[in-house]
Amino acid sequence: MFELLARDKYSKARRGRLRTAHGVIDTPVFMPVGTQGSVKAVSPRELRELEAQIVLGNTYHLLVRPGIDVIKHFGGLHRFMNWDGPILTDSGGYQIFSLAKLRKISEEGVEFQNHVDGTPAFISPEIAMEIQTTLGSDIAMVLDECTPYPCKHDYAARSVEMTTRWAKRCKEALQRRKENVQRSTSNAQRSIEEDQQSAIRNPQSAIKRQLLFGIIQGATFDDLRKASAQAIVDLGFDGYAIGGVSVGEPQEEMMRAVESCEPFLPADKPRYAMGLGTPPQMLEMIARGIDMFDCVLPTRLARNGTGFTPTGTINLKNADFALDKSPIEENCACYACSEFSRSYIRHLVKAEEILGLRLITLHNLHFYLDLMKQARTAIEREEFDEFRRGFASKYKARDADLAVTQ
Amino acid sequence: MFELLARDKYSKARRGRLRTAHGVIDTPVFMPVGTQGSVKAVSPRELRELEAQIVLGNTYHLLVRPGIDVIKHFGGLHRFMNWDGPILTDSGGYQIFSLAKLRKISEEGVEFQNHVDGTPAFISPEIAMEIQTTLGSDIAMVLDECTPYPCKHDYAARSVEMTTRWAKRCKEALQRRKENVQRSTSNAQRSIEEDQQSAIRNPQSAIKRQLLFGIIQGATFDDLRKASAQAIVDLGFDGYAIGGVSVGEPQEEMMRAVESCEPFLPADKPRYAMGLGTPPQMLEMIARGIDMFDCVLPTRLARNGTGFTPTGTINLKNADFALDKSPIEENCACYACSEFSRSYIRHLVKAEEILGLRLITLHNLHFYLDLMKQARTAIEREEFDEFRRGFASKYKARDADLAVTQ
Repeated sequence: MFELLARDKYSKARRGRLRTAHGVIDTPVFMPVGTQGSVKAVSPRELRELEAQIVLGNTYHLLVRPGIDVIKHFGGLHRFMNWDGPILTDSGGYQIFSLAKLRKISEEGVEFQNHVDGTPAFISPEIAMEIQTTLGSDIAMVLDECTPYPCKHDYAARSVEMTTRWAKRCKEALQRRKENVQRSTSNAQRSIEEDQQSAIRNPQSAIKRQLLFGIIQGATFDDLRKASAQAIVDLGFDGYAIGGVSVGEPQEEMMRAVESCEPFLPADKPRYAMGLGTPPQMLEMIARGIDMFDCVLPTRLARNGTGFTPTGTINLKNADFALDKSPIEENCACYACSEFSRSYIRHLVKAEEILGLRLITLHNLHFYLDLMKQARTAIEREEFDEFRRGFASKYKARDADLAVTQ
Repeated sequence: MFELLARDKYSKARRGRLRTAHGVIDTPVFMPVGTQGSVKAVSPRELRELEAQIVLGNTYHLLVRPGIDVIKHFGGLHRFMNWDGPILTDSGGYQIFSLAKLRKISEEGVEFQNHVDGTPAFISPEIAMEIQTTLGSDIAMVLDECTPYPCKHDYAARSVEMTTRWAKRCKEALQRRKENVQRSTSNAQRSIEEDQQSAIRNPQSAIKRQLLFGIIQGATFDDLRKASAQAIVDLGFDGYAIGGVSVGEPQEEMMRAVESCEPFLPADKPRYAMGLGTPPQMLEMIARGIDMFDCVLPTRLARNGTGFTPTGTINLKNADFALDKSPIEENCACYACSEFSRSYIRHLVKAEEILGLRLITLHNLHFYLDLMKQARTAIEREEFDEFRRGFASKYKARDADLAVTQ
């Protein structure tokens, strides 16, 4: 499933390729977040034009609206949202812990009331897998408990142990579902290409190829991160995610959490740092051996009038841009920068015109996706370290941007 | 400038062609409303794909935000908003009368405070022309007083007379501005095609070809409508608009206002019914000799979750559509209908995803533009009356839709 194409000499950066039921993903990769079955303000056609390789869907949000039955009726999320590329779904756990009300966690699972209309619901590892096979995602995530920051060692330790038991139950539940599908469909041998065509026509066949990633927790404690990584890797998954990062902890803690886990992760599986991050953070994570990222920053900041540039973010509402004929970013190839000035986009944002946030969203996603493309090329050319340092020296982080990461 | 290509045998419907500095417009035509320099939620690229022939810009809104100086800095509205097709600008009068605060109307002009930050401003016929040449629109409108509904005969009569005097001042002011531009640029003879190319490169050259439409007022009074039409036509304009319609009056009054004016309008000039209307209203207006329309209905209703179909509007939030795999309109060629289901669009609207209103906006604009295309073809084929009756027999108007026309 995962092929390691190149490794950087001076860091742990990796250039890889992941095969899924709906297509190939070149890593390092940024995954735009399609929270409620739509990457906010962007159409599937625009995602393809941006060369997005994979999008993320949030199980919790889809469970609340439109409900899994609706998506089941369409044969899965791909058909519902009209996106035929790869999709990764989370387990729903993160949002249950951050958005839902009246949570009650037990060994069995989590009881909660959704944040929209308070409808009570229950999710267990088995149910999380059932939902994700119904969504038909290419990559599913295990149900985990994402501990907050700060978190006591004692609580984090017990949570890590339960997350491991849940991970095992997820793996077993998905295995059973795959066996059921296998029994109910033809056993004919087919090539991957035939399978991929088949996945688009028949969501059932995609489930047979659904990948499952384990999630490593352990808060900010080295010993727990290590123990969690070992336990999750021992269970064996198609990829490994580092969860419980970018939850408000200082950046050094975030880097340390990844550094604690990384030595235990097998080289031949993809690694995914969940919910990250700023452009320099992603490059730092790549240097620490991470392959996959998802983050709401480019879309969320866009809706706030903030655009990414190689020197840092700019607030397009700023009066300085009132007469500025230049694009958000000079020499950027995106639609917004090819055709529109900062002045016009500033006007649209100030006048609350939807086109304003649409254009900044397209630019910001292009910026993130292009940064990953540049990182891939740099790793292939053995120039990643130079690239990362060059980028960091020019990019000036703003605290205000980080306030909206979650 | 205007060429009459065909006339219907059974009604006053006309098929025409209007040449402007930025291109040719086939009539009858619907003009999407780009209030603040953007057709709400739509990009210029999408407008071109929708085959929009011309867009409308609202002088008042642009005056308030971003301010005329910003647009002047860009050499006009075309460059500012990156739309190289024809633009019609209104005079700003309508919004001053409907949105601004503390209006004081005198023979000289109107004092007002804008509705956004209360900044005081003054507009006169001469200033309205100055602003519209700065915007560089292809079609400018005279400054008029749009009387409300209901309105006393006495007030309407005095208003019509002042509107005529203002129209004369507008015409003279534009003439002076054109002569100034003429003096300051080369006098070389050029073809229309060269002029059009030149208009895109040099906004000054477009001003020489800027068209000016007069506006007929007179509220719901036949005698005033006739007097206004005669007086405005006597002054001589490139086209004639019927204003003060669709301001809350019953539909019969609206039709009667147009019928009162129409006999006085020269056949060889385009006629424009301002701020109209529903699909059947537009067809009725075409049958009464109207060539041009603008209306916020398709875009505004879209943002409310309402889509147009040949049988009337549908509210996509309706639970009936929760599992509906069909498009908004069967056999519709627009992007929304080619690629997305009512179920998915319903979900997006319910979940307040921007893509939902984007898709409905694209569909609704396509519906309006396509209706005009069908009307043009029907007139050419001498089948307009049949087409209009066929459409009306299937289309069921909803009162709720009309509540948002203004």
